[in-house]
Amino acid sequence: MDRGWCALVVFVALLPLHARGAEPPVSDESDECITCHEEVTPGIVASWRRSRHAQVPPATALGRPELQRRMSATAVPDKLKGVVVGCYECHSQNAAAHKDNFEHFDYRINVVVSPNDCAVCHPVEAKEYGGSKKAHALDNLQKNPVYHALVDTVTGVKTVGADGIHGAPGSETAKAETCYACHGTRVEVKGLRTVDTDAGETKLPILTNWPNQGVGRVNPDGSRGSCTACHARHAFSIELARKPATCGQCHLEPDVPAFNIYKESKHGNLYASHHTKWNWDRVPWRVGRDTEAPTCATCHNSLLVGADDETIVARRTHDFGARLWVRLFGLPYSHPQPKDGRTHLIKNADGLPLPTTFTGQPATEFLLAPKEAAQRQAGMKALCGSCHGSTWVNGHFAKMDATVREADAMVLASTKLLLQAWDAKLADKTNPFDEAIEQDWVRQWLFHANSIRYASAMGGPDYAAFKNGWWNLTHVLQQMHDWLDVRQPKAKKP
Amino acid sequence: MDRGWCALVVFVALLPLHARGAEPPVSDESDECITCHEEVTPGIVASWRRSRHAQVPPATALGRPELQRRMSATAVPDKLKGVVVGCYECHSQNAAAHKDNFEHFDYRINVVVSPNDCAVCHPVEAKEYGGSKKAHALDNLQKNPVYHALVDTVTGVKTVGADGIHGAPGSETAKAETCYACHGTRVEVKGLRTVDTDAGETKLPILTNWPNQGVGRVNPDGSRGSCTACHARHAFSIELARKPATCGQCHLEPDVPAFNIYKESKHGNLYASHHTKWNWDRVPWRVGRDTEAPTCATCHNSLLVGADDETIVARRTHDFGARLWVRLFGLPYSHPQPKDGRTHLIKNADGLPLPTTFTGQPATEFLLAPKEAAQRQAGMKALCGSCHGSTWVNGHFAKMDATVREADAMVLASTKLLLQAWDAKLADKTNPFDEAIEQDWVRQWLFHANSIRYASAMGGPDYAAFKNGWWNLTHVLQQMHDWLDVRQPKAKKP
Amino acid sequence: MDRGWCALVVFVALLPLHARGAEPPVSDESDECITCHEEVTPGIVASWRRSRHAQVPPATALGRPELQRRMSATAVPDKLKGVVVGCYECHSQNAAAHKDNFEHFDYRINVVVSPNDCAVCHPVEAKEYGGSKKAHALDNLQKNPVYHALVDTVTGVKTVGADGIHGAPGSETAKAETCYACHGTRVEVKGLRTVDTDAGETKLPILTNWPNQGVGRVNPDGSRGSCTACHARHAFSIELARKPATCGQCHLEPDVPAFNIYKESKHGNLYASHHTKWNWDRVPWRVGRDTEAPTCATCHNSLLVGADDETIVARRTHDFGARLWVRLFGLPYSHPQPKDGRTHLIKNADGLPLPTTFTGQPATEFLLAPKEAAQRQAGMKALCGSCHGSTWVNGHFAKMDATVREADAMVLASTKLLLQAWDAKLADKTNPFDEAIEQDWVRQWLFHANSIRYASAMGGPDYAAFKNGWWNLTHVLQQMHDWLDVRQPKAKKP
Repeated sequence: MDRGWCALVVFVALLPLHARGAEPPVSDESDECITCHEEVTPGIVASWRRSRHAQVPPATALGRPELQRRMSATAVPDKLKGVVVGCYECHSQNAAAHKDNFEHFDYRINVVVSPNDCAVCHPVEAKEYGGSKKAHALDNLQKNPVYHALVDTVTGVKTVGADGIHGAPGSETAKAETCYACHGTRVEVKGLRTVDTDAGETKLPILTNWPNQGVGRVNPDGSRGSCTACHARHAFSIELARKPATCGQCHLEPDVPAFNIYKESKHGNLYASHHTKWNWDRVPWRVGRDTEAPTCATCHNSLLVGADDETIVARRTHDFGARLWVRLFGLPYSHPQPKDGRTHLIKNADGLPLPTTFTGQPATEFLLAPKEAAQRQAGMKALCGSCHGSTWVNGHFAKMDATVREADAMVLASTKLLLQAWDAKLADKTNPFDEAIEQDWVRQWLFHANSIRYASAMGGPDYAAFKNGWWNLTHVLQQMHDWLDVRQPKAKKP
Repeated sequence: MDRGWCALVVFVALLPLHARGAEPPVSDESDECITCHEEVTPGIVASWRRSRHAQVPPATALGRPELQRRMSATAVPDKLKGVVVGCYECHSQNAAAHKDNFEHFDYRINVVVSPNDCAVCHPVEAKEYGGSKKAHALDNLQKNPVYHALVDTVTGVKTVGADGIHGAPGSETAKAETCYACHGTRVEVKGLRTVDTDAGETKLPILTNWPNQGVGRVNPDGSRGSCTACHARHAFSIELARKPATCGQCHLEPDVPAFNIYKESKHGNLYASHHTKWNWDRVPWRVGRDTEAPTCATCHNSLLVGADDETIVARRTHDFGARLWVRLFGLPYSHPQPKDGRTHLIKNADGLPLPTTFTGQPATEFLLAPKEAAQRQAGMKALCGSCHGSTWVNGHFAKMDATVREADAMVLASTKLLLQAWDAKLADKTNPFDEAIEQDWVRQWLFHANSIRYASAMGGPDYAAFKNGWWNLTHVLQQMHDWLDVRQPKAKKP
Repeated sequence: MDRGWCALVVFVALLPLHARGAEPPVSDESDECITCHEEVTPGIVASWRRSRHAQVPPATALGRPELQRRMSATAVPDKLKGVVVGCYECHSQNAAAHKDNFEHFDYRINVVVSPNDCAVCHPVEAKEYGGSKKAHALDNLQKNPVYHALVDTVTGVKTVGADGIHGAPGSETAKAETCYACHGTRVEVKGLRTVDTDAGETKLPILTNWPNQGVGRVNPDGSRGSCTACHARHAFSIELARKPATCGQCHLEPDVPAFNIYKESKHGNLYASHHTKWNWDRVPWRVGRDTEAPTCATCHNSLLVGADDETIVARRTHDFGARLWVRLFGLPYSHPQPKDGRTHLIKNADGLPLPTTFTGQPATEFLLAPKEAAQRQAGMKALCGSCHGSTWVNGHFAKMDATVREADAMVLASTKLLLQAWDAKLADKTNPFDEAIEQDWVRQWLFHANSIRYASAMGGPDYAAFKNGWWNLTHVLQQMHDWLDVRQPKAKKP
C-alpha cells in the first residue's frame, strides 16, 4: 500500500461510524418520529443519535460472540431485526398492556417505556431486575407500615398549635421529590388532554406522579422498575451505568453513603484521577486492563473477565443484591440479605415486617442462611482477588465482620436509651419517629451506623471517624443521654 | 493533492494556532509587558497564551456571523482592532476613572480590570450584568440593615463574660473571607508603596480589601462587579463559565445548594460521567448536540440553538435572574423575582428592606407581577422542552409549585415558635440572629427550606429528604419546640 | 523524507512504547512472577504494565538531565540497572530486615514493600519523608496520651448502664478503619498459614493490622511510612500523587478540610473544569504551562520551574510540612510548625505533649522561631508570585494572618465555657472528650476553627462562613452557653 494511504487509513479508522458514510438502517416509523422531533425535542434526538441503539440493529448484535453480546435475547421479532433501535421500536411495544398508549399522528405510542418493553431484547436483565429489591422499592416502602410511618413523619407539613407540633401525612409531591424519587412512584393515566402543535391538535395522556425514574416505579403497563434510572435516556449507555455518579444519585449520604465513601476510598481516588483513560464501553470488562480500579458496577453487577479475555471473574447480574451476603443499611441492625426482593413480606419475631427485631434479632427464615451467605462472601473475595492477594482480602473482610458487629452494638446502646424514654413516658412510642430523642435514635442507625458499615466495606476512613461515624454515634448517644437527664431527676432513673 | 500531503494537512489542522507558526499580532505595549512578566509571573502569561484573547484580534471577531460572535460591540477603537487582546489592551482602559492607575515603567496601568473596561468589547454583557442582583450583591448586604446584622452576628469574634456571650461586629478580613468573598468587597486605593524589582524601583498602589473577585465588587473606577469571578484570569474562558463548578464556588450548600443539587441530579450525573466528550467552546451552543445535559449556564444564561444551528432556543443574558420567575433563596419565604437588582430598595409592609414580611407576605410592588412571572416560567418550560415532552415538563413544574408552597409553610411554623420565644421573653428580638432558637430558625429557611426548593427545581432528592431537607426541617422544628418546652412550664404556654 | 512517511512518523511517535514493538527488559525473576500472577491477580499485573516502572530501567533513568530525573539515587546495584522495576525488584529488597519475608516457590519474597525498599532508587525522597510528621503519624497518636484518649473515646463501643454511658477503649479494627487508616497501623508477622494454589501448597505470613496504607505505618522491616498511600500500587504514578483527590483521601472535612476547601476555591474550580487538558506527567513541572492552577502537590512538594524550563521556582520535597510556617490543624490553637516530625516529643508549659497550652500558649522551644517561620512564608509568597502580583499576595497573607488569630480567639472563648463547666462540676475533666459540652468544645477547634483557617489559606468562603466555619463556631458557642445555662442557676454563675 502507498505510504500516504496507510496513514490515511489509520486516521479514518478512528472516526465514528456515521462520519464514515455508512448510515445505519432506521425504520420508517422511527424516521417519521425523528422528522418532527428533531425540531420539537432536538436534544433527545441528538442524544439518541450518539447511542449504540442508533448504530447497531439487533441482527448485527446477535452475531457477536456470546461474551461480547449486550443483548440477552437469542432472537427478536423479524420486524426489529434489521433496523436500529429507534423511537418507535421502544415506544410501541406491548401496546395492549400500556394504559398510557395513545394515538399520535396515526401511530399508537406509549409514553413510558418499561422494563417489560426492554425485555424484548434484554429478557435476562429484566428478569433478574424484576426479582430484586430495586424492582420492589416502592412496595417495600408503601406496604411496610413502619417504613411508611417514617416517610410520612418526615415529609408531612407540620403546623404549630397551642399544644405542640402537628404533623400531616406527606403530600404526593413531597414524597415524589424525596423518598419516591429513588424508590419510584405509581404512574397512572388520568384521562387525556388536548394540545396544539405545529403539526395540528393531538391528545396526550395525563399521568400521575410523573416525571419519575425511580428504580421501583410502577408503570402504566403494570410492570415495576425503570431502566432509565441508570441507563439514562436517550443514549441508554453502558458507560453511564458503569460510572459511580449514576449509582450515587440514590446511594449517597447521609442515609446510604455508598457513593461518598467510594469517593474517599483508594478505588474512588483512582477513579477520580484517571477515569478519562479507562475503557468504559467494552464488553466483557477486563479487570485491571479496561479500568485500574473497580466502580460500583464492577463489584456489584458487571460481567468481568481476566487478562485472557475469556476466564470469567464474575457473571453479569441485574439483581444488584445477588453478590451480597449482609445488608448494611435500611434497618437499625445489619442482617443477612433477604431471600426475596419483596422485603415487605418479612415478619420478625414481633410480627412486624422488618428483618430484625427492635433489639436486633434477625427474622431468620426470610434471610440468607449462614452457608449461602458464606458462599456469597467467598465469591466477593474471589472478585477482590483479581487485584489483591489473599492475605489482603482476608484481612479486609475480617475487619468488616468485626466492625459490623460493633456498629450494631452501638445502635443497641441507643435503642436502650430510647426504651428508657418510652418507659418513663418522656416520649410516646405510638409514632417512633416524631420526637427529638426518637429522631436522634433514627440518626444513629440511618446515618451513623450505616456510614461506619459502608466505610468498612469500601474503605472510607473519614466517614467511619468524624464525618458521620464513630464520632457522631458517640456524640448523639451522649445527646440522647443528656436529653433524658435534663427531663428525668436522677433519683427516678431505673 | 498528493496523498501524503493530505494526511499531513488533516494533522496540521488539529494543531493549535501558535503551533502552526502563525503568530497572532500582539501590540508593542503588550509585547513589552510580556517580556518582563514571562519571567516575573510566568503562570499568568502562559495562561493568557492559551486564551482566545491571545489568538483573535477584534477585527477578526467582528467578521464572524452574528450568532457565532463572542463580542457584542459592533465596533472597537482603531487601536484595538488589529491586535490581540493582551495585557495592555485590558489594563489601560479608562485610565482617568481608575484610582488604581499608576505609572509602571513608563506606562499608565490599572491594577484592577473592571466590567466597565471589558465593556469596550462586551457592552451588552456589561449592561445586562450591571442591572442584575449580582452587580449589586455587596450593596444588597451592606445597605440592608437586616442582612448586615446577620453578617456581623456570624462573622464577629465573640468573647465570654460573666453575663454571657458578647459579639463584636465582623472584621473586614473575616467578612472578606466569608460573605464578601462572593458578594464582593469595596476596593479602594490607600496610597502607594515602593518595591524593588529586577528592572528597578517602582511604586504600586495599596488596595483595600484586595484580593477579591466577588460578583458585586466595587472597583477603584466606581464600577460594580467582577467578570473574572466566572471567566477566571488570564484565560477568560467561556468553557470555564459554562462548567458548573464555577457557579458552584458561591452557589453551594448549605445556604445556596444549587451546585450540590445539580451534582446529584440526572443532569449532573450525565455531566460528571460524560463531560469530557462535550463541546464546551462552541458558540452558539446546540442543545443535545454540543452537550448531552444542561449545566447552570445552559438554563440560566447561554445562547442556545436547535439542531439546525439557527433556531434560537434561548438568547444569551448576563442578568442571571432574567429567566427566573420565583426567588428560592436568600429570604425565609420564596417570592416572585425582584424587578430591580438593587434589592435593598425593597420595602415590605413592615417598612423593612425585605421582599416579604416576617410571616411571608410579599412586597408586591417591588416584585414581578403574576403575568410576567408566568411568562418567564413559560420561557423556562420551552427551554426544558428541547429535551423533555410537555407532559414531563408540566408535571415537573406543578411539583415545584406545590413544594415551594410547602417549604414556605414549614418556615412559617418555625417562625411561630420563634414568636412564642420572643413573646415569652425567652429570647430577645433586638438581634434576631444571636440566640440558639433564633439560629435554629435561621437554619430552617437559610439551609433547609432553600435546599428543598432547589432540590425541587433541579431534581436532587437527597437534599430534599435527609441531607438538608424535610428530615432536617422536621428535626429542627422539634428542637425549637423542645428548647421552648424546657424553659417554659407547660401551664404558662399561650 | 517522503511526505507520507513524515505523517506516519508523527503518528507512531504518539503511540506508547509497548505498541511500538520495543519490549522493555524484564528480569527473569519478575518474568516468572508475572507468568503466574497474570492469571492469579491479573488486575495488578495490568496496572503495573502501564507504569513507568515497567517501561524504564534505572540505567535509562540515570541518563536523564538532572531536573528531569525521577529517581534521586546516583547509582543503583548492577543487578537492577538494566531491567525494568518489576515485581521481584521491589518485593525482594532488604530481605534480612523483613520479618514478612517468606519462601514463595523458591524465591524469598517480602509481602510489604517499605519506604526503605523504595530508597534503593529514591533515597532523597525516603529521607525527607522519614523526618516528616507523616512518617511519625502513628507514633504521634499512640505515644501522645492526650491524642490517644481522644482516639479511644471516639472509637470505643459504648454501653448504657443504670448510671450512664460506659466507654471501652477502641478495638484494633475500629481504630484501623478510622484514625489509623490514615495515620498507619503497626504491621507485624504472627506466624504462617498454609494455602493451596494451582501451583501447589505455599505458606504465607499472617500479618496484623493489614491491609493498611496509612502514611505513618510501621512496617515489618521496622521502617515507617507507606509510599503507596499516594503512589498507589501498582502504577506508582506521579500523576496520581499530583492530583488533589489523592491528598483528599485523608485531608478532608470535617477535621482536615483541605481537599474540600480546595474544591470550592478558584484553583479547585480550574482543576475541576480543565484538568483533563493539563500535563500531569512532566518533570519538572512548569508553572502555568503544564497546569493552569496549582494542586496540593504544586504548593506543598513538587519541583517547579519557570517558563524557561530551567529557573527553579520550588525544589521538590517529600517532607510535606517543609514549606509551611504555621500549623493550622490538629490542635485547638494554631502555632508555628514543629521543628521535628515527632510531635509526641513536644512538652508545653503544663508538661503535656502538646504544642500549645489549654489556653493557647505555644511550646516555643519545639516550634519554628519567628525568623524561620517568616522565611518559609516568604518562600510560599514567592511561589504564589508565579501567577499573582505582590499586591495580591501580600493582601492574601495579611488576611490569613488576621483570620488565624481570630479563629484562635473563638477557640479560647469556647475553652472558657468549658472551664466554667469543669469548675462548676457540671462536667468531669478526667476525660476531656466524653461529655456533651466537651464534645462541643472539640467540634469548635477540630472542625470549625480548622475550617476557617484552611479556608483562609486556600480561599474557600463557604467553609469559612456557613458550611463549617463562623456560623458554626457562633452557633456551637451559644449551645455550650445554653448547656451551662440550663444546668446552672444564674445566681450561681461565677
